[in-house]
Amino acid sequence: MNQHTVKAYGDELNQLTAEVARMGGLAEAQVADAVESLARRDIALARAVMERDVKLDAMQHEIEKKATRLIALRHPVASDLRKTLAAMRLATDLERTGDLAKNIAKRGLTLAEAEPMQPLTRSIERMGRLVSLRLRDVLDAYAASEVDGALAVWNSDDEVDEHYNALFRELLTYMMGDPRTITGCAHLLFIAKNLERIGDHATNIAETIHYEITGGEMTGERPRAAPAQDDDLHLLT
Amino acid sequence: MNQHTVKAYGDELNQLTAEVARMGGLAEAQVADAVESLARRDIALARAVMERDVKLDAMQHEIEKKATRLIALRHPVASDLRKTLAAMRLATDLERTGDLAKNIAKRGLTLAEAEPMQPLTRSIERMGRLVSLRLRDVLDAYAASEVDGALAVWNSDDEVDEHYNALFRELLTYMMGDPRTITGCAHLLFIAKNLERIGDHATNIAETIHYEITGGEMTGERPRAAPAQDDDLHLLT
Repeated sequence: MNQHTVKAYGDELNQLTAEVARMGGLAEAQVADAVESLARRDIALARAVMERDVKLDAMQHEIEKKATRLIALRHPVASDLRKTLAAMRLATDLERTGDLAKNIAKRGLTLAEAEPMQPLTRSIERMGRLVSLRLRDVLDAYAASEVDGALAVWNSDDEVDEHYNALFRELLTYMMGDPRTITGCAHLLFIAKNLERIGDHATNIAETIHYEITGGEMTGERPRAAPAQDDDLHLLT
Repeated sequence: MNQHTVKAYGDELNQLTAEVARMGGLAEAQVADAVESLARRDIALARAVMERDVKLDAMQHEIEKKATRLIALRHPVASDLRKTLAAMRLATDLERTGDLAKNIAKRGLTLAEAEPMQPLTRSIERMGRLVSLRLRDVLDAYAASEVDGALAVWNSDDEVDEHYNALFRELLTYMMGDPRTITGCAHLLFIAKNLERIGDHATNIAETIHYEITGGEMTGERPRAAPAQDDDLHLLT
């Protein structure tokens, strides 16, 4: 390999990482805006979130294509290979995060036409902010290649669960108290679940960063033993 | 490369594909058993599903490790590279399918302690059978490397959505009619959503098979334009 080829190869890898970081920035904005549109009953913002989602799909597609090309032509090994495979994994998590944000915006659009449910919306907003922060922190860790930052996000997974559990209880109480709110609350239930799933994607991203930097998979139990969607189980009485 | 190396390489690729197929078989069984345990209020079966889930996690881990090793040491290109990357993608979808089956079993365990909700359980069972069939068909297509079979699954995505929509309506009506069922119905709502998401994984798997065989990504719209979780949106009145 001559000097020129080596340089181009390094450039390609850096470009891939930069594209993932950019995709992360957009996904983060989508989540924040989706929650904001819900809290403010802002139909225009909700529509903007829904329309922007195609960009994330296109970016994922582009990252997959570039990573595959890089593997086929450059034969990366060791940390370069991990970086390339990590880019593909991260793009998948970010694309799904975007889908969930889009779904929140869509549900917000529909809820904006119904009666406001103030205390519930504020709880959702708080959970949304918490999840946005986790996403921001883990993307900061990615940009800085900091395994400690990723581990911090990985270890704080249970905060989101606590919020979700509290919200689940709150929603059921609301539904039982006033059956006319059942349909609206069912949508809020899915919004809460979507936020929890975004939190799970942040955890996945933390695991991928750990893999990319250290070459090892995360060992030991996740902060909580059960997957996210199980947290409301013990609340059935 | 001598004859021996070439043979071993081909063996490794075939082994990878076989492991994905085996993992698919287990995921399929997990979904079927989870639905069965729910329908029959079978606590022992639900527990078995929950315990078996670690196997799927281990299999995914193993497939990722083997695929990464294969890329690093064998430098596959063209259809061999696609086959290797597809194995990693499929393992991710199957692992998530397993998580969803486990969650259904767990919720079933909890619901078994509550009052039976007969007509609802039968609707869930029907939807569960439909989703299991899609999973079986797409895994058959993978084993036979048949792009037509994969396309058939991809094109029939809206059947699952129709079931989900009907179930969503049914659940809300039930909740409104008898608020004491609200908590139980909330769990059934998530079970229905989990089944829909398993259907989405079957669609993803169909797309990956198409990519593996043809080298092209699916073009054109998915059978329905919106992602799965949006289907109940228009039902908010």
